[in-house]
Amino acid sequence: MTNDQVKHIGEQGLLAKLQRFCPAEIIGDDAAVLVTAPEKSLVVTTDVLVDGVHFSNVTTSPEDAGWRAAAANLSDLAAMGASPLGITVGLGLPGDLSISWVERLYQGMTECLQNYNTPIVGGDIVRSPVITLSITAFGQVHPSQIIRRSSAQVGEAIVVTGVHGASHAGLELLLHPELGQSLKDELKAALIKAHQRPQPRLDVLPILWEILDSYSQSPHLPVAGMDSSDGLADAILQICRTSNVGAILEVRQIPLPAAFNHWLAKEQALEYALYGGEDFELVLCLPQDVASTLVQQLGQDAAIIGTITSQATVILQDANKEIPDQVLSFSQGFQHF
Amino acid sequence: MTNDQVKHIGEQGLLAKLQRFCPAEIIGDDAAVLVTAPEKSLVVTTDVLVDGVHFSNVTTSPEDAGWRAAAANLSDLAAMGASPLGITVGLGLPGDLSISWVERLYQGMTECLQNYNTPIVGGDIVRSPVITLSITAFGQVHPSQIIRRSSAQVGEAIVVTGVHGASHAGLELLLHPELGQSLKDELKAALIKAHQRPQPRLDVLPILWEILDSYSQSPHLPVAGMDSSDGLADAILQICRTSNVGAILEVRQIPLPAAFNHWLAKEQALEYALYGGEDFELVLCLPQDVASTLVQQLGQDAAIIGTITSQATVILQDANKEIPDQVLSFSQGFQHF
Repeated sequence: MTNDQVKHIGEQGLLAKLQRFCPAEIIGDDAAVLVTAPEKSLVVTTDVLVDGVHFSNVTTSPEDAGWRAAAANLSDLAAMGASPLGITVGLGLPGDLSISWVERLYQGMTECLQNYNTPIVGGDIVRSPVITLSITAFGQVHPSQIIRRSSAQVGEAIVVTGVHGASHAGLELLLHPELGQSLKDELKAALIKAHQRPQPRLDVLPILWEILDSYSQSPHLPVAGMDSSDGLADAILQICRTSNVGAILEVRQIPLPAAFNHWLAKEQALEYALYGGEDFELVLCLPQDVASTLVQQLGQDAAIIGTITSQATVILQDANKEIPDQVLSFSQGFQHF
Repeated sequence: MTNDQVKHIGEQGLLAKLQRFCPAEIIGDDAAVLVTAPEKSLVVTTDVLVDGVHFSNVTTSPEDAGWRAAAANLSDLAAMGASPLGITVGLGLPGDLSISWVERLYQGMTECLQNYNTPIVGGDIVRSPVITLSITAFGQVHPSQIIRRSSAQVGEAIVVTGVHGASHAGLELLLHPELGQSLKDELKAALIKAHQRPQPRLDVLPILWEILDSYSQSPHLPVAGMDSSDGLADAILQICRTSNVGAILEVRQIPLPAAFNHWLAKEQALEYALYGGEDFELVLCLPQDVASTLVQQLGQDAAIIGTITSQATVILQDANKEIPDQVLSFSQGFQHF
């Protein structure tokens, strides 16, 4: 017996081994940044999705698989502050797959992409024993507007857009329809839609830049942030680790879906919100005044959920003391591999 | 029984069905072009490779699979006239694959990429039942230097770089070692190396632009061309079809590997050169004077092999009449799917 197989070290272990093949300055964000011209940086991100691992016909129509794949990549661009230029689509397909399945996949992808004026600009189609969808998205950003994980400052407010936990709740409802019997149909539908048709938050960027410009005479400090595709807890932990800071979060400030109110116990609701993943919202660290104005402009779904601290830990507090203080850690979160 | 499966319409048929999802102006070249700034266009190309379909342990070490994948994508950039900026690597891996296999794959990729100062800038690693390697390469090009398939002009010379047929011969030698018994070891090794370690011809581009600049006072006409990854015949047929022109080719002018001389019958040598594929050379249509100078500067391996005509056919002639005139067609060529 040896321990030299991929499954023994997992995705993170393998990435660590492969980092020596990539430029050091490029690793560790939602996407890579390349300077192409003085005022333009190119941002590139790539995702591979495999049938049976990342999607399945049980919970996901081909249209939804396409939408979700496109949305995940656009969300990575949003997480870097970049406007999308286009995506390429690499497909591995079994020969006996129906043509309409592939057309429906593209239909879902383009439905999502059209909302953000993003074209499919290329691709490759090959035979494979398993359906494999590989998307690379690229966008551009002014260098001063690149959002990285590494620049969070002590004292900054932590802003989240949207609600968290909805996508995971929608998935649970799809897998176990009996769970939602007490839920009104429209609340149930909203959760399922959150899972099947997530919205990358590119809409937040122009609002953010306008506020930042209005608050600062000189060029503003870099914004720290990422998207919450792997869960809200993961996003905050990643930002804190990369920025060498900590955070205090207030449980009651985390926006939850309306459907959670009388449906889920507080602990379960929180578990979905923190570790459910795939909400594709933005988590941003901003000066307090900028944060307040942004939350005001984005409306009731956005919120300041905590503050960056100089500690090495991310602590979750409950002002009402219904839930004991917790120290968040990666091991509770969702693992890819 | 229905005919609605992917295998019934093949790659080309499926691409035709999916074209409505992509911008019309982007389709049909080796890579997509996006204007990012007035003097810069972004060129993007993507390839998916599947274990057992595109590579196998019989003929390809993981290092060679990595090199070949990187080379194929860089060759697509060269075929568009673009300088590489970087690549992203999407990997689908079975859990029981050895870690060293993956490291050796990256070793091969970076060995190739280093020759062209091209970094791996990102990627994704996921679990998959079959090894899948998805590479997206992006580069940049001045808009006047974009090489497209569609701009070949009647009367232009057709220039090919390098020799053709070497990669396919190398593959045959790997699959059937008994074939090469009459060949000297170094000739055999050169053919096998041509298959395992193809060289994308990015080196040709600066030489080409310098010659074009010296010949034209005003901006030069766009250069038509592509790479010969799917075979020399395929490249010329694609250029002619897309440009609405034809061509006359002279058999004796097609540069063949030295090893072919006393080893292969004339017809077999020609078949390897025209349809073997994966030589990753450039096929360019150029004014006669530019073509002559380019061939002179590139040395003995490059050659003018024919002329663009106003006919609708691509005709292969033999000045010595050892081989009857042939009309080339796609159906003889290599099919992906």
